[in-house]
Amino acid sequence: MKHTKFAVMGATGAVGEEMLRVLSEYGVPAENVLALASGRSAGKTLKYGEESLTVRECTKESFRGTEIVLGATEADTASAMEPFIRECGAVFIDNSSAFRLMDGVPLVIPEINGEDALSHRGLIANPNCSTIITLMAIAPLVRLAPAERMVVSTYQAVSGAGRGGMEDLISERSALVRGEAVSPRTFAHPIAENLIPKIGDVGENGYTSEEMKMQNESRKILHAPSLSVTCTCVRVPVMRSHAISVALYFSESFSVSAAKAAYRDFPGVILVDEPEKERYPMPILSGGKNEVFVGRIRKTLDSQNGIALFCSGDQIRKGAAANAVQIAALLCDGKQKRIP
Amino acid sequence: MKHTKFAVMGATGAVGEEMLRVLSEYGVPAENVLALASGRSAGKTLKYGEESLTVRECTKESFRGTEIVLGATEADTASAMEPFIRECGAVFIDNSSAFRLMDGVPLVIPEINGEDALSHRGLIANPNCSTIITLMAIAPLVRLAPAERMVVSTYQAVSGAGRGGMEDLISERSALVRGEAVSPRTFAHPIAENLIPKIGDVGENGYTSEEMKMQNESRKILHAPSLSVTCTCVRVPVMRSHAISVALYFSESFSVSAAKAAYRDFPGVILVDEPEKERYPMPILSGGKNEVFVGRIRKTLDSQNGIALFCSGDQIRKGAAANAVQIAALLCDGKQKRIP
Repeated sequence: MKHTKFAVMGATGAVGEEMLRVLSEYGVPAENVLALASGRSAGKTLKYGEESLTVRECTKESFRGTEIVLGATEADTASAMEPFIRECGAVFIDNSSAFRLMDGVPLVIPEINGEDALSHRGLIANPNCSTIITLMAIAPLVRLAPAERMVVSTYQAVSGAGRGGMEDLISERSALVRGEAVSPRTFAHPIAENLIPKIGDVGENGYTSEEMKMQNESRKILHAPSLSVTCTCVRVPVMRSHAISVALYFSESFSVSAAKAAYRDFPGVILVDEPEKERYPMPILSGGKNEVFVGRIRKTLDSQNGIALFCSGDQIRKGAAANAVQIAALLCDGKQKRIP
Repeated sequence: MKHTKFAVMGATGAVGEEMLRVLSEYGVPAENVLALASGRSAGKTLKYGEESLTVRECTKESFRGTEIVLGATEADTASAMEPFIRECGAVFIDNSSAFRLMDGVPLVIPEINGEDALSHRGLIANPNCSTIITLMAIAPLVRLAPAERMVVSTYQAVSGAGRGGMEDLISERSALVRGEAVSPRTFAHPIAENLIPKIGDVGENGYTSEEMKMQNESRKILHAPSLSVTCTCVRVPVMRSHAISVALYFSESFSVSAAKAAYRDFPGVILVDEPEKERYPMPILSGGKNEVFVGRIRKTLDSQNGIALFCSGDQIRKGAAANAVQIAALLCDGKQKRIP
């Protein structure tokens, strides 16, 4: 890992900057990291651990000499650059939605299906943030019995809309305190002290693209092609931790204590489940952390075979940047590693 | 209604004040309204339309000469005062949880089971706020086919914890802007830019009291004793509109267009369902209004027989005060009336 030559494409965005932070936490030296962004950002200086990096414009020539490219751009840029990355022989670990459902492209959460990454053909996709956090939360349970269906409602942080989403919340929060009118820029409506129940575009079946990712990406990651998911995605006025309310139904019944025990040795997930002591997953608990927090585990009341739970995870870290760097570590070291 | 003698018990709280506002909107003159609260608040002046009311201490003698007492106190006060209200011959419409599940006490949402109110024996219970808003949203569908089970995740405003909840959000929001530490008073944790997935006390089955209300009160109001509900209640940093994500499963299948058509003539519910035009229920839409807003209507993907939807309603108005005054209007006029 420390001797691998990295490029981060989209290095000035919220996810790109976090990828740099996680790479430096892994001990990758600054001289092995190329920070790429649009021409507009070229020349900017970014913090990298104790050192700094100068942003370079991302062109089709940029990837020469790199071994792993971490993508933190929108899908169109990722698609446009992918051929050039391949040409240079680098492995592309992409956080956009461009390649996630493509045949032959592994879609990987290292703790769940890390072995899929090892059969890559130069391109590995990083799943959607709310999918990663939800699947980390249910993965220990899915080992107990196959999951058949899932009902999910999300509470998604503004950071999921990038830096602009966070700027909307910060500026609207100040406007509220000053008693001024709130004027959203990134979102279609104010988000401070509001909820927006639509993330992504709406498809013919009435579900948004974000909601369909939960079903489609979960099927691929869990190797569960018949898993059905009813998902409702909602933007909430929280800075950078997503939370998700899950009801998960299995082919058989198991006890709450068996469910809780399943979390004991699962890497990357922390059970916080003493609600009577006010201990449960919350954004203020998961913010800035790599782990996904799970709690409120109980039997569903509408089926004998279901478990309900609530989870929270940092959308920029495990939901995006940390998961991508974990995949890189997997490739470099040939085995699953916890984030240091 | 205008000639009825009212008392509002707990008149200085968030719900009590809103009851006064709704009574004045109904045209009840100030001289027919008694504002009752604890001794601490006695002598305070409250706005009542263009006029004002002086708060009197609530004692067992307070109810003489009143015909309808609207209760906006905690359950213990409601229980303590109920015998005295009965003794005075007044009808008690109580917003607390004290009497809701008691046999012989109607639990009423006028648009849904208004006829139940007419068989009262001096005591009528007002349902829990999140239950009212959820049931208003699903009531048109339940007329199409019986509902068998429901999976619900709530997004509950801080006003549900009364004035103190709103004060926590306001003061924490200011602290965030000033870069100061946040110190919650009403909630167990900070709520500004956070989520708290526990409302009420936790029972043996792992569900909170607030979550069990959704199943127990829904069964009584809908006359559906076998309806099963898996509910997760979450406090969100929103001022006074609750929102709810619902997946509702029926004994048979019907189309999305049949579902949407069911909302056409249902009083008190407004369908806002053009997500492609950024039109959907949101707290900023429902705040201060009596109606419940419903949208994002679509088939569930985990069952042929289900409908998923998202709704939002003002917790203090239809979720509490307006519903209680509507019940009073029902009693006074003998028929269901829309809130003016």
